[in-house]
Amino acid sequence: MEQRLSLVTLGVRDLARARKFYEQGLGWTRSAGVEGEVAFYQLGGMILALWGRDALAEDARAEAVAIAPGKSFGGMALAYNARDEAAVDAVLKEAEAAGATVLKPAAKTSWGGYAGYFADPDGHPWEVAWNPFWTLKADGTVSLEAPE
Amino acid sequence: MEQRLSLVTLGVRDLARARKFYEQGLGWTRSAGVEGEVAFYQLGGMILALWGRDALAEDARAEAVAIAPGKSFGGMALAYNARDEAAVDAVLKEAEAAGATVLKPAAKTSWGGYAGYFADPDGHPWEVAWNPFWTLKADGTVSLEAPE
Repeated sequence: MEQRLSLVTLGVRDLARARKFYEQGLGWTRSAGVEGEVAFYQLGGMILALWGRDALAEDARAEAVAIAPGKSFGGMALAYNARDEAAVDAVLKEAEAAGATVLKPAAKTSWGGYAGYFADPDGHPWEVAWNPFWTLKADGTVSLEAPE
Repeated sequence: MEQRLSLVTLGVRDLARARKFYEQGLGWTRSAGVEGEVAFYQLGGMILALWGRDALAEDARAEAVAIAPGKSFGGMALAYNARDEAAVDAVLKEAEAAGATVLKPAAKTSWGGYAGYFADPDGHPWEVAWNPFWTLKADGTVSLEAPE
């Protein structure tokens, strides 16, 4: 697993309220998204997403799986974008061998990618994803722009 | 507030176990840290930190302050590094005016910086910090190298 972070997703109860806070309140510009569902913000070489907290928890299987004793899902997830489907499988395998809990085995996603989740030893959820619609550059930075 | 993220801190129960997972397990290299206390990993233009979960919660006042109704501290915090102390004050003021809860007013820190915390409308904690020991570049990326 390369030493990098592609995405931080904040689970939100009210996307309109959260967007208003980050956009009108803090002055950020939404870079992409699906109206009423998800908002993406390009932050330098990585991305921040606002997404429904329940949808995120369901996607990560974060509340269905006992992440770690005494831990509750904090409503935030990290993501690592891999270069292809095989790399997703390899990273999940590597993490599991290192002691992670696989929350969700890798599978095709509804949005056309391929992803799974693991939790680190403290229960922090990491999505490992291949996303053919975003650009993963050679230096490991991620852009919301479509690949060339 | 510029559209960027400087640091993600993962609260951990056992730093040695967490370091072993990320370093031996996933193959990452620790970039800096204080033995037995905190570990920093340079991830492109941002940083990931592993720090004691209780220390993080205390630092952020995350469990002392009602972040948001029904929310518990998830053990993860984001941070925004500002260019000087005045910018820390300005960002906290901007966030509060936008509806954030100030968890901790800005103050001098034990490590020689200046920082405070706010929680966004969903309770996600953001530290806003001035750190004179790290390099904040013009493009907003942060490096663990000492400033020139």
